[in-house]
Amino acid sequence: MTKDLAVKKRKVHFSPDNVDIIVDEGENLLQVAIAAGVRINASCGGKGTCGTCKVLIEKGQVETRRTPRLSEEEYEQGLRQACQSKVITDLSIYVPVESRLEKAVVSRERKEAPGALATGWRFSPPLRKFYVELPPPTSEDNVSDLARLLRTLKQRYHLSNMTVDFDVVGKLPRVLRDGDFKVTVTTLVTAAEARARDRRRLMLTNIEPGDTRDKHYSLAFDIGTTTVCGQLVDLNRGQVLAQGMDYNGQISYGADVITRIAYSQKPGGRKKLQQAVVATINGIIEELLARSQVSSQHIGHVIVAGNTTMTQILLGLDSKYLRLAPYIPVANLFPPVKADSLGLNVGEQVYLFAFPAVASYVGGDIVSGIVGSGVHQRPELTLYMDIGTNGEIVIGNSDWMVTASGSAGPAFEGGGIRHGLVAAEGAIEHFDIDLSSLEPVVGTIGGAKPKGICGSGLINIVAGLLEAGVITPNGKFNAHLPTKRVREGRDGYEYVLSWAAETQIGKDIVITEVDIDNLVRAKAAMYAGCHTLTKSVGVSCSDLERVIIAGAFGSSIDMEKAITIGLLPDIPRDRFIFIGNGSLLGARLTSFSTDVLDDARRVAGMMTNIELSENVDFMNDYVAALFLPHTNGDEFPSVTGKLARLADNRSERRITV
Amino acid sequence: MTKDLAVKKRKVHFSPDNVDIIVDEGENLLQVAIAAGVRINASCGGKGTCGTCKVLIEKGQVETRRTPRLSEEEYEQGLRQACQSKVITDLSIYVPVESRLEKAVVSRERKEAPGALATGWRFSPPLRKFYVELPPPTSEDNVSDLARLLRTLKQRYHLSNMTVDFDVVGKLPRVLRDGDFKVTVTTLVTAAEARARDRRRLMLTNIEPGDTRDKHYSLAFDIGTTTVCGQLVDLNRGQVLAQGMDYNGQISYGADVITRIAYSQKPGGRKKLQQAVVATINGIIEELLARSQVSSQHIGHVIVAGNTTMTQILLGLDSKYLRLAPYIPVANLFPPVKADSLGLNVGEQVYLFAFPAVASYVGGDIVSGIVGSGVHQRPELTLYMDIGTNGEIVIGNSDWMVTASGSAGPAFEGGGIRHGLVAAEGAIEHFDIDLSSLEPVVGTIGGAKPKGICGSGLINIVAGLLEAGVITPNGKFNAHLPTKRVREGRDGYEYVLSWAAETQIGKDIVITEVDIDNLVRAKAAMYAGCHTLTKSVGVSCSDLERVIIAGAFGSSIDMEKAITIGLLPDIPRDRFIFIGNGSLLGARLTSFSTDVLDDARRVAGMMTNIELSENVDFMNDYVAALFLPHTNGDEFPSVTGKLARLADNRSERRITV
Repeated sequence: MTKDLAVKKRKVHFSPDNVDIIVDEGENLLQVAIAAGVRINASCGGKGTCGTCKVLIEKGQVETRRTPRLSEEEYEQGLRQACQSKVITDLSIYVPVESRLEKAVVSRERKEAPGALATGWRFSPPLRKFYVELPPPTSEDNVSDLARLLRTLKQRYHLSNMTVDFDVVGKLPRVLRDGDFKVTVTTLVTAAEARARDRRRLMLTNIEPGDTRDKHYSLAFDIGTTTVCGQLVDLNRGQVLAQGMDYNGQISYGADVITRIAYSQKPGGRKKLQQAVVATINGIIEELLARSQVSSQHIGHVIVAGNTTMTQILLGLDSKYLRLAPYIPVANLFPPVKADSLGLNVGEQVYLFAFPAVASYVGGDIVSGIVGSGVHQRPELTLYMDIGTNGEIVIGNSDWMVTASGSAGPAFEGGGIRHGLVAAEGAIEHFDIDLSSLEPVVGTIGGAKPKGICGSGLINIVAGLLEAGVITPNGKFNAHLPTKRVREGRDGYEYVLSWAAETQIGKDIVITEVDIDNLVRAKAAMYAGCHTLTKSVGVSCSDLERVIIAGAFGSSIDMEKAITIGLLPDIPRDRFIFIGNGSLLGARLTSFSTDVLDDARRVAGMMTNIELSENVDFMNDYVAALFLPHTNGDEFPSVTGKLARLADNRSERRITV
Repeated sequence: MTKDLAVKKRKVHFSPDNVDIIVDEGENLLQVAIAAGVRINASCGGKGTCGTCKVLIEKGQVETRRTPRLSEEEYEQGLRQACQSKVITDLSIYVPVESRLEKAVVSRERKEAPGALATGWRFSPPLRKFYVELPPPTSEDNVSDLARLLRTLKQRYHLSNMTVDFDVVGKLPRVLRDGDFKVTVTTLVTAAEARARDRRRLMLTNIEPGDTRDKHYSLAFDIGTTTVCGQLVDLNRGQVLAQGMDYNGQISYGADVITRIAYSQKPGGRKKLQQAVVATINGIIEELLARSQVSSQHIGHVIVAGNTTMTQILLGLDSKYLRLAPYIPVANLFPPVKADSLGLNVGEQVYLFAFPAVASYVGGDIVSGIVGSGVHQRPELTLYMDIGTNGEIVIGNSDWMVTASGSAGPAFEGGGIRHGLVAAEGAIEHFDIDLSSLEPVVGTIGGAKPKGICGSGLINIVAGLLEAGVITPNGKFNAHLPTKRVREGRDGYEYVLSWAAETQIGKDIVITEVDIDNLVRAKAAMYAGCHTLTKSVGVSCSDLERVIIAGAFGSSIDMEKAITIGLLPDIPRDRFIFIGNGSLLGARLTSFSTDVLDDARRVAGMMTNIELSENVDFMNDYVAALFLPHTNGDEFPSVTGKLARLADNRSERRITV
């Protein structure tokens, strides 16, 4: 085809979504799927290295680049990596269940442990409504509409020192008269300055005709790299009306923040990423409003907490220097911004507050979790861990805090794992193994037929295999066991969790040595982070008085199994508290109280970040932790004891047999 | 034509502009001219009552409504009122010189009298630039870009308590690195709050790479109902680099604020009016920048002063209640707004400050004039008059101020006058009359052939005719004089100023009894306003220690003639000070000093407005002033004496003959 010919248009049909799209010949199939709204897993961001975006070409022709991620057998079946394929003819594409992104199961969210909540804050939402009846203008009292309003607010509620949003001035004449001079105004406290409560400056952000005080809502969001969670909050009653979550629409551009930042540097990339997460947020908003029968016009405030990259991308900021040493965020405290200017489907009077960040890899989500769980309020030495694609760790108490983060990789959320899945229906989460037959008992989320393995399932499986002696402490399979479940596969040895016939995907679901290695590296990064950080402040893990585990993933892991593989420290179990999504927790509490807002600013300022990537101790700790549970058995006394007993039992059994 | 047929397109050609436009059949010809950028006078806003928008239909057909404003003779010539005509066929239209709006003559602007300037302010522009060199980030010092910037600004310049514009955060990473961490930041003091100088909050509005302190400019504008004047100000040197003016593009929608407000209530009207004045402002900005070789990116601030209606329309605010009793402005103090959001062609970092208004008919232009001329700084009893379409009057001193306004009508700017023109080339301004032959000597602006009469010319003509006995003190012609210059015309008696052959327009230029009546009513409104206002504070005109005359028009009137017709009070002449455009003066000084900005807020707050339209005294004063110079001759002792002497001379001459 010569260049001067017009580009041909091609129709691409996706099933089972049953979606058609017309595109130019030559377009990238993954991009086409994204454009069509078809949700395909693409952990590596379309570089071809993860192999999760395989689709079946049912009809038509693509031009594809083959990578080691596509086996000969798959190629013969007509499978192709979407990210490596170009549209040549009209196409009919089937997206297999394991390549699909589906909504995670919301109901798995645990209730927060009440004991881990921040305390002592007053119910004083930053967003408030005031109802006023103004004396209508007369020729004796003909001050301007705005002067009349401000005068009455001062007389009636002692409100002064206000800044007025220009848009409010624009609405003023109409609203005052529509409401017969009875109106409700909305004021907002921003975190833009630290000052005494009574001298705090209010922003007048909205005015409505009549008395609308009973319609007074805000939105709290956790913007995660993988998932976005939102809550609709009733600011009169101090309660959550609805909660929703969805995958971050940016997933199709890469699984982790590094890939996202790289994508954001491509032409138009920053805008695309922003639009992707905004679309996700808007979808959740729509769902929350529909479920709770609240109109979007009554939303007055949006509070978001996210890691630094997610926050910066949402705000449309250049994240280039987040991933270049010395790792510089654009800002710690972000000025308030109109939510609709970012594309959010809320009224033009709504400001968005983004939690302050500490450093490139210690973001507002951690600050939010800390203020939400009240770490800064208590004297006890506390370890706060947010387990996810990015592992973040804080150690401290009401006097001091140090923090660190490291990329654990996506294993905890099912990424980089042959049959990895996020925690969605059909994901294997529960695992038991018969110690003699080595046959598994698997349980899935929602009880459906298995279609993959979620992060917490992975921990349970590895812990079970370790306890049963199927794998050794260095994560390798014991190849000489009397079971056909252990076999040699593409990636070395593997263990079959479900035979093809028992699954949704029609093929054996396995865990491979590569999968185990990925998990071991992820847990080693988390544990080594804790270890290095505790050491850096002169304590050891056993000195920790409380360990708060946060993260959507964190809320569903089995504490005992997590200790068994060496992810969590081997300390008395009653010191652990699981709070679920700590980032969302802090965002919601901030909706309720300016005290928490003040705390957020203060906590962000008191955190000292330690850069692990350049820390020699950390590298040593990391290498030491690349073992199940750890090369230093003394750090995991209860686990090594248990494993020794189980090994003894196996020997006895063998001797007995 | 039936309705379901598609509307036909017609081509309309305008000369001498030589512009073509394609429009729908049936469209209003005045609107078509506006759309084509052809500037036609339409003082009444297209109601058909002023007769200033006559055009010649050279080719093609219009459907027109005839009004008494179009004589049989004009109709026969092919003249039509554009506002009353619909396009039927393709057209060729000639716009006669007297129907055209042309640029007024800038060079007529007088220099302000230095003695009338505000004093004592420090040179401390609200907009400032600071150059900083930041230490580049290292792994030991890896705070965020914003934290680094704010930290250095605090260390280097003791700047703290700043709010940061969100757009600055967006630019930050790029600008810091483009400038190798050497940058110039711009800060702005807004008038949003009254507080002590050292506790004033600064807004960080811009950041630029490198040291740009030598490029530091602002724009000051007076937004008048008829004309818009602008100045480009160098904030380093405290001087005006260029000055420009143009007609307010809204003129085509009506000559006065009442007509404009009425138009703004039509669908889309508010937006159209806003766009019209914004286009005018942008035209002036372009001219100022071109003349001074300044790039628009170095403009950092825009300060505008205008009457309340002009200010509200520029800001896009609903002005409906300005003209309905009890006459309520939207706001007195307008929050700062991004100039580009209003459509101004300046950078996105530029805020616009609009001078605070006092009341519906006492606007920011008056406040600006008062602070600019320093009325509020002096103990002397001062009368401040802004003479224009809307006459505004202030009496007071450093302790108190009362203010009033009244619609003088457009006579002072040539509106409602048969051959009225704004002060443009060819407008008759100077007038002398030979007391025996009654032959005139006329002088025009720029020395061109006459094409009409400007406002100051009108005063000179009426004063001259009065002194010569051609008209009587009640404004009627003495019909029995031995001159063919006085004759009966369409509007009663008239005096021929220039015979057709001597003019640019090819017809006799006359002043009619209706014209004189319009001027008398305009001067009566101004004088009665002063009289009522002085009386209301217990003083008389002779107590005034200073009389400051402002207004573009005010700067070109002949003081003696203005006293002769009774527009200005008959007091010692050395008490008068003419300051030209006081509104522009105050806007410029505010560019230079936050002291003046503070004064503006304070002065707007200390003014008490008196509503003349409902004041019985005013109605009596007005009726008493409908006479040349006044029904009460004692108020104009020097004038009555002079007129009596002249009348005696005439009698003597007649006796002698």
